[in-house]
Amino acid sequence: MTKKALRREPLYEQIKTVLIRRIGDGEWLVNDCLPSEWDLAAELGVSQGTVRKALTALVSDGLLYRRQGLGTFVSETPGDWGEGAMLTPGLFNERPDPLVQELIGVSRSHASDEMADALQVRRSAPLVRVRQLWRLGGVVVALDDAYLPAESFEGLDARWIRQAGGGVHAALQQRFGVRARCVGEQVRAVVPPREESLLLGLDPEEPALAVLRLSAGMDGAPVEWRQRYCRSRFWSWTRREKW
Amino acid sequence: MTKKALRREPLYEQIKTVLIRRIGDGEWLVNDCLPSEWDLAAELGVSQGTVRKALTALVSDGLLYRRQGLGTFVSETPGDWGEGAMLTPGLFNERPDPLVQELIGVSRSHASDEMADALQVRRSAPLVRVRQLWRLGGVVVALDDAYLPAESFEGLDARWIRQAGGGVHAALQQRFGVRARCVGEQVRAVVPPREESLLLGLDPEEPALAVLRLSAGMDGAPVEWRQRYCRSRFWSWTRREKW
Repeated sequence: MTKKALRREPLYEQIKTVLIRRIGDGEWLVNDCLPSEWDLAAELGVSQGTVRKALTALVSDGLLYRRQGLGTFVSETPGDWGEGAMLTPGLFNERPDPLVQELIGVSRSHASDEMADALQVRRSAPLVRVRQLWRLGGVVVALDDAYLPAESFEGLDARWIRQAGGGVHAALQQRFGVRARCVGEQVRAVVPPREESLLLGLDPEEPALAVLRLSAGMDGAPVEWRQRYCRSRFWSWTRREKW
Repeated sequence: MTKKALRREPLYEQIKTVLIRRIGDGEWLVNDCLPSEWDLAAELGVSQGTVRKALTALVSDGLLYRRQGLGTFVSETPGDWGEGAMLTPGLFNERPDPLVQELIGVSRSHASDEMADALQVRRSAPLVRVRQLWRLGGVVVALDDAYLPAESFEGLDARWIRQAGGGVHAALQQRFGVRARCVGEQVRAVVPPREESLLLGLDPEEPALAVLRLSAGMDGAPVEWRQRYCRSRFWSWTRREKW
């Protein structure tokens, strides 16, 4: 952000940015209580009202939460996987093993017409592409390509994603103050392209689940287009009321 | 129900059964207001307290709902399709066409070990199997086999399902006072068996979505095991925050 842009921003927005950075830098961890409005105001040299306005905005963005009489706390960091769990089939009643995320790489890409439409960017707009693998008991079960508008998330790279614990959504929250949530999802059965089939360890012509997911920030603005292939020969994608 | 069994049942349960039948017979339609507790008590020859107890039970079963100061109303009948909509791919922002349900037939079956476990019945217990097709713009897009414990749903046949508008869940609600809801769902990509492939109009070896869904009544008791194949060459299974 240039100094000029900073000067134009309302004061509480500048305080928001400072607080997001300090949370991103790990000064306050998940479920940590922030200092009082009074202490923050004194430290940052602004009025208590400005601090309150910044905190209220961060609460409505979902980055902080309040507990009556206790204070303001840092929210949980959202994961990248989403709602459905990966399970071995036939074990409908069994709690799934945790999935392990592995970052393959971050590269540059451009918005297809479909992506541009969904992400509300211009056609061919530059995108950051984040490719990740998901493992269950060591075996690859899914492959993700997350596409994000490069202009909104300048500087998003492998280092920031690793520092955020491997998650794109964690990095968005920690570095950009954007808490992403799924706003739409499409599932199909397909035979994936050759490269993706090889990465997933599929047999030739073996079908996989293709999941397309659009995520938005708490303000409703789209932030991520994610294409996922799930191996479903031995695993299934499962949602339950409770485990 | 035998007279002996009827005599053993608490009075409010008998009133519940009477009310469920009268709703099932169409005396009160969806969103109709029921007569007052006072009028029902006079008509049925029981106390107002007994009527209130039966109505409260039906409200907690989800078959009726109350509006403060207005009365007790008949709930919407649940559909069979579930949450995900069927869409043409690439039209992520377009509202889907309505799916049309077609009953193919009702037959007898037996619980596999997996079904018995999920439905909490003994292995090989008799099941009612209801086979249905789903069409989008006239074209078959999905095929359902719903399996229900025959002992819990005696008399469930094609006639009752047709009278309920074609839905199994509508028939369960109207004839048995059971409001089914999805408690678990598994999705996989598979090449369906030959018979199902033909019914869906798939090419040989064409993959489809296989959806397994377990539904329970409002009391949590499992009532239905449903296997669905969705054609996903031209369609996808879509969930959105809002349309």
